[in-house]
Amino acid sequence: MIRSTMQRVPLSLNQILERAGRLFPGSEIVSRLPDKSLVRHRFADFYARARKLAAGLRALGLKKGDRVATLCWNHYAHLEAYFGIPAAGGVMHTLNLRLAPAEIAWVANHAQDRFLIVDDVLLPLLEQFRAQVNFEKIVVVPLTRARVTAPFVDYEAFLAAAPDEFDYAPHEEDDPIAMCYTSGTTGRPKGVVYSHRSTVIHTLMANQPDHWGLGARDTVCAVTPMFHANCWGIPYACAMLGVKLVFPGPHLHPEDLLDLFAKERPSYVLGVPTIWLTMAQLLESQPEKYKLPPGMRMLVGGAAVPESLIRTYARHGAHVTQGWGMTETSPVGSIAYVKPELLASTDADARYKLYATAGLPAPVMDIRIVGENGAAQPWDGRSVGEIQVRGPFITGGYHDTPADPEKFTADGWLRTGDVAAIDADGYIRISDRTKDLIKSGGEWISSVEMENALMAHPAIQEAAVIAIADPKWGERPLACVVTKPGKSAAADELRAHLAGTFAKWQLPDRFEFLDAIPRTSTGKFWKAKLRERFK
Amino acid sequence: MIRSTMQRVPLSLNQILERAGRLFPGSEIVSRLPDKSLVRHRFADFYARARKLAAGLRALGLKKGDRVATLCWNHYAHLEAYFGIPAAGGVMHTLNLRLAPAEIAWVANHAQDRFLIVDDVLLPLLEQFRAQVNFEKIVVVPLTRARVTAPFVDYEAFLAAAPDEFDYAPHEEDDPIAMCYTSGTTGRPKGVVYSHRSTVIHTLMANQPDHWGLGARDTVCAVTPMFHANCWGIPYACAMLGVKLVFPGPHLHPEDLLDLFAKERPSYVLGVPTIWLTMAQLLESQPEKYKLPPGMRMLVGGAAVPESLIRTYARHGAHVTQGWGMTETSPVGSIAYVKPELLASTDADARYKLYATAGLPAPVMDIRIVGENGAAQPWDGRSVGEIQVRGPFITGGYHDTPADPEKFTADGWLRTGDVAAIDADGYIRISDRTKDLIKSGGEWISSVEMENALMAHPAIQEAAVIAIADPKWGERPLACVVTKPGKSAAADELRAHLAGTFAKWQLPDRFEFLDAIPRTSTGKFWKAKLRERFK
Repeated sequence: MIRSTMQRVPLSLNQILERAGRLFPGSEIVSRLPDKSLVRHRFADFYARARKLAAGLRALGLKKGDRVATLCWNHYAHLEAYFGIPAAGGVMHTLNLRLAPAEIAWVANHAQDRFLIVDDVLLPLLEQFRAQVNFEKIVVVPLTRARVTAPFVDYEAFLAAAPDEFDYAPHEEDDPIAMCYTSGTTGRPKGVVYSHRSTVIHTLMANQPDHWGLGARDTVCAVTPMFHANCWGIPYACAMLGVKLVFPGPHLHPEDLLDLFAKERPSYVLGVPTIWLTMAQLLESQPEKYKLPPGMRMLVGGAAVPESLIRTYARHGAHVTQGWGMTETSPVGSIAYVKPELLASTDADARYKLYATAGLPAPVMDIRIVGENGAAQPWDGRSVGEIQVRGPFITGGYHDTPADPEKFTADGWLRTGDVAAIDADGYIRISDRTKDLIKSGGEWISSVEMENALMAHPAIQEAAVIAIADPKWGERPLACVVTKPGKSAAADELRAHLAGTFAKWQLPDRFEFLDAIPRTSTGKFWKAKLRERFK
Repeated sequence: MIRSTMQRVPLSLNQILERAGRLFPGSEIVSRLPDKSLVRHRFADFYARARKLAAGLRALGLKKGDRVATLCWNHYAHLEAYFGIPAAGGVMHTLNLRLAPAEIAWVANHAQDRFLIVDDVLLPLLEQFRAQVNFEKIVVVPLTRARVTAPFVDYEAFLAAAPDEFDYAPHEEDDPIAMCYTSGTTGRPKGVVYSHRSTVIHTLMANQPDHWGLGARDTVCAVTPMFHANCWGIPYACAMLGVKLVFPGPHLHPEDLLDLFAKERPSYVLGVPTIWLTMAQLLESQPEKYKLPPGMRMLVGGAAVPESLIRTYARHGAHVTQGWGMTETSPVGSIAYVKPELLASTDADARYKLYATAGLPAPVMDIRIVGENGAAQPWDGRSVGEIQVRGPFITGGYHDTPADPEKFTADGWLRTGDVAAIDADGYIRISDRTKDLIKSGGEWISSVEMENALMAHPAIQEAAVIAIADPKWGERPLACVVTKPGKSAAADELRAHLAGTFAKWQLPDRFEFLDAIPRTSTGKFWKAKLRERFK
């Protein structure tokens, strides 16, 4: 039997770090500190410091596979952890600082985190759960330059004291490098463990020209937290290609971001829709004060992006690319762009419709939508089912968690819990999370479509539609809305607005006018909270 | 020990074919036929026909790993073979139609090719070696629509008769899909066998935005023969992303190519320098008649590209990207572009200097240059050594050939035989093939640099510099030159021209004025022929 003559060399994150240091020593990393000043590093620093971190962890006794947790905002030191911890053979575990302290503790204990790297400004948060966890050593990043006192170790002193000599930990490509717990809007968080292999393949795949498309001329501002599905994998691509990175640190208010954009002029930014919704208000209300860098591209994911928001940013010169994915998918599972055969036949309106979908399935991955009858549905734009995916950067289980047929099919596909139709062109339209579906009188109502329609109303800032139990119909939709400052809209007016797109029986009987929609730890609308409040 | 939770799904070429058919059915494939007419297929046809080919081969008795040879120009059916043969579990073996018939026979026998797909216009070539080979079945692509007679099988009839039902052959990711013999300017050709894994990783890597950068808006014209290192891997990327492909068929004369470019307006073309050298003459001499599509990008590889040629194309609105690689490297090993930290500091002249190098090493691959002392050389732009590479798309041996320490190091790196320096920025400057090196009085002279300098002279069309044995100095350089039509230059004038860049002792003592430089089967200057002639 003939065999391939290709070398059997494992894919490796270390190869990306070596490349970053050797080929792109002059590329920049800009980080905003808690006092809002900017600190600048070069990839040469990043390379040397990531290796120092690895050498220091090794000297501390880190063994292959040991988990090193981070509790950090987005900045240079977090990037060093992304590469330094795996270089030593460790597994970087990004803790979600927006979880409740008890939940962070639960996650750290479940992952058996041995060491912690934490921002000094997050020490008050750490204190709220430190008694419940058991880190052998806590290294503090001195972002404020305040003195770090025992029992903590100063991150800079830790790097300075680390051996200069360092050899990468030997590894196979399936060895783990990072883990991230799902944000868990229901049930306990569950840990996804990424490998060298999954990370390298995902990076190469997600940075294809039609997807992220990052290259030498780009400057990336990563607003997506680095504890949120590895910042969607963007830092790996930037390191591989020498792309300048701008980190906002703890300053995620739209005013601060716009100020940072004006200073560093990113060509590419990424974050969840809620941040861009608020920023859009500033851009619209104070066009003289706030401007986006010309031609800025925006990668928006984590929740559906209303077409109205995409159009708003287009008016301000920015192009929104929407993607779908989850912690379990590394995370890029689909991305919205106009495919070749539709370029000639679509006008601007038709393209906005495409941009408002979850996009086309990513390469190197299989996807299917499975209906209630358990059968794969046709791609006809009408047949709805659960998205199921399979591929080398898709999780096949959860760390230290019993196999769960609710999460994986018998033939090994991930059950995402997202419900969608795929049209004949391959564009995915997500109608709901399984648990957010509204079934009224035996028929489905898409909360996502209704929310997008409501947010297209000129008076509405945010909208979340939930199912409310109903003795007659099973469930009925309830719309929670937030009006724009100085605007108002009566329930009847909103119902009339929706009547253009929805059947009469689908219209919400009840509207709740709120000051804000509650957010999950990763910035998504927290519908479970709303269901509890209005049940 | 913690384990990655990622799914263990093999990388697969079949996944690309499925994607091409499902997501991009409307993308176009344009092929030029022998009569110069154009035939158009859609990816929907390509998908269905590639699977029919696979089903037909299976019905013919193809077993896992069986080699199916192709002896074809670039066109739709060759693309179908790229995917259909592996889909059936076979290994596509592209025969180089520019080799001597006896050598083609040797290669086919060495590979143990079981079936052959051949263009009808190449049957006269086949007849020259058919008695020496033993194909069980020969399938003829009826490009001229002439009737195919026994014992041959018509390709269209073969597809029509193939079963409609087809299941992909099960495979691991290291299983072979294609093989290509090195053009073998010295010694017997040697076979490189690619796998699903190497092909998928190479495709994703080589299509990063700074490299090929192919996306939805591109139209690619593949002038590089499909038997030349799998057309550099470009067809795989186009299939993955739905990029329109234009194939020139047997018509590779610059006039024909310019006519094809005017008709189909490619945004991206690829081929070896010799074709573009001749085309440049047409563009320069008849600017009213010939025009390139605006903004066309050109991927040029297989031999060094003189800076003068890059500047010529820039005057005609096209950007030349030079790459280095070989059959053994899948083939992309490096690619020339301006890296981020040099964008601000380089003017146009400095950038042309970068474009005239072999570029920056590719990602997901290790590179070193090893000096005569066996040590890795520093990246200082001066220290010269053999390029050695390692990675998942680099060959680690040759098909059915004893291990050769001349080709692979003890630690498993490929010895490329190319000699280069790498500068502090990471740009590779190839000075020679090991066998083309000129050592005069104990010092090296770079034939490539001298050729580029000669080709920058206004009267010189082509130049090849070779080593001639010399009793006193060991070797001395001899310059073979071809002048442009209607131009001439005396040896003394050329020596004076070179004296600007080269030391006096490096200048050639002897110039030979030829009508043409002989070419190898893949269009490179054939220096072995010149050395033989002038020894």
